[in-house]
Amino acid sequence: VTSRPGRSTPELYEAAQGGDRTAVARLLSLIERGGDEARHIGRLAAPSAGAAYTVGITGAPGSGKSTLTSALVGRVRANGADVAVLAIDPSSPFTGGAILGDRVRMQDHATDVGVFIRSMATRGHLGGLALATPEAIRLLDALGRRLILIETVGVGQVEVEVAGKADTTIVVVNPGWGDSVQANKAGLMEVADIFVVNKADRAGADETRRDLDQMLDLAGPAEWPTHESPGSWRPPIVLTVATDATGVAELWTAVDDHRRHATESGLLERRRDARMQEELGEIVSRRLRQHARLLCGEERWRELTEAVLERRLDPWSAAEEMIAPLT
Amino acid sequence: VTSRPGRSTPELYEAAQGGDRTAVARLLSLIERGGDEARHIGRLAAPSAGAAYTVGITGAPGSGKSTLTSALVGRVRANGADVAVLAIDPSSPFTGGAILGDRVRMQDHATDVGVFIRSMATRGHLGGLALATPEAIRLLDALGRRLILIETVGVGQVEVEVAGKADTTIVVVNPGWGDSVQANKAGLMEVADIFVVNKADRAGADETRRDLDQMLDLAGPAEWPTHESPGSWRPPIVLTVATDATGVAELWTAVDDHRRHATESGLLERRRDARMQEELGEIVSRRLRQHARLLCGEERWRELTEAVLERRLDPWSAAEEMIAPLT
Repeated sequence: VTSRPGRSTPELYEAAQGGDRTAVARLLSLIERGGDEARHIGRLAAPSAGAAYTVGITGAPGSGKSTLTSALVGRVRANGADVAVLAIDPSSPFTGGAILGDRVRMQDHATDVGVFIRSMATRGHLGGLALATPEAIRLLDALGRRLILIETVGVGQVEVEVAGKADTTIVVVNPGWGDSVQANKAGLMEVADIFVVNKADRAGADETRRDLDQMLDLAGPAEWPTHESPGSWRPPIVLTVATDATGVAELWTAVDDHRRHATESGLLERRRDARMQEELGEIVSRRLRQHARLLCGEERWRELTEAVLERRLDPWSAAEEMIAPLT
Repeated sequence: VTSRPGRSTPELYEAAQGGDRTAVARLLSLIERGGDEARHIGRLAAPSAGAAYTVGITGAPGSGKSTLTSALVGRVRANGADVAVLAIDPSSPFTGGAILGDRVRMQDHATDVGVFIRSMATRGHLGGLALATPEAIRLLDALGRRLILIETVGVGQVEVEVAGKADTTIVVVNPGWGDSVQANKAGLMEVADIFVVNKADRAGADETRRDLDQMLDLAGPAEWPTHESPGSWRPPIVLTVATDATGVAELWTAVDDHRRHATESGLLERRRDARMQEELGEIVSRRLRQHARLLCGEERWRELTEAVLERRLDPWSAAEEMIAPLT
């Protein structure tokens, strides 16, 4: 299979359905870029999507998320199932793109056709990834991947949000990785369906487990996993050493348990509905803004912006004029 | 001064202008909540705003940002200038609000009328803080605060963005706080105008300084502080021990230097223009969406949402129908 960037979106989609990985990669690039082609892909994929299960993996930088993801991939492949991995990377002009160091470890699976791995970059704008990630999931879902792992590289709010919107979210901490207050600060406690203490062969693993346990106690049963499903799921704490796959079978069992719980309790449906609703809202906002700018006229839009920048006009008054042709 | 929550927005604004701190706090709460009243406050404040200088302070949790902010406040107050501090807190349902532990240290200045301190919470939605922070700055600016410190509690992408949008941004690291790759991952390198190695009395401070220096070398002069102002500002690296104010005078000199550079090079104006443009875009998006929903009708809007959730309709087709009355 050779890369032919000239192929149309439907051609690429058809090729991707036939198993052409270059076509899948190209479609994901179009999704990442956004715009009309991304929307076109979404429309092609939507009717076939809805069967994939997503697992988010997040935690502090250096906690071993990537190695753990790789170990989970190994576990899933041992069962014979296909898997896709989306690695959410904060893009940085400083390095000229996503940091690829962690990705290297995933090379274990690079030649395995049952594994599809892809980095998604934020490209510097906050909203971009929030839209591109569900679209990428929809595509992989429509192409038949039944399991999609979403690993975050950093622990920024967007990454936590993206990982926290998976069907099951794993939060990775380390022994002595600061106390649990740090996890709380980063917004990790509230998205966790499962806690992993990775690098558990190091000193302090049991203390970290105890800290997490106490925080769960303090939160009380009514708090877990959130008000979505009161008291019915307490996040288990699994100790792992991802580098030699210790504890990874137990982690996979915990994922399965949570999946069963989420499905039976209706939590899964509520989460998926909330996600879809948010995505819809984002799509509406973008299209309206494009339309308003078109109707207002590029020149007037610029004049009003100028007036705000020079503080001759407050932004609310300018906004009113900008959207006036639509309202 | 007693708290009278029944006062109207203009009454509160007038009282705030007269130095009523309860009124200021109440106005900031209204801004945090968003909606019509926030907009009203913005319009009242806009004509008088534009003179304040903002300094962002960000870095990993536990790096001592809060203590450093407190020390900076002490330094500024020693010069007799007033100062306001906005602490950007990730809100967490888990703890039932902002984590206040770090705030306690700021109690040093709690009885000083020259210091105004306020925590801003994200309230769980990504866009909220992005809008509320510039509005809070605008209010404090209009009320005559000439210096506003913006301290982030966590290091999430939103917090980094908020701090990175200050006129001068300080990035705080610690000796041995992972290598500089970690700072890079968190998106900190690219927002830094000044680096601080805090807790510099610990082992490894010089190594950390060297690491940062090497990263700056690698980036090359054309990269600093970004393409906004090629080659003209290399972020200085200041070693501090915030707990006893060691290095804080030097840090303040670095802030002054950067301020002069930014003003003279035009960087300050470009940054402020970019920020205002972004805020305007956000305001436009919100108002359009509210309007579209009104025109589409609550019932039809809900039907279309329902159809998307039940996968009878893709979100792009639904969005088209939702915005049809406006387009």
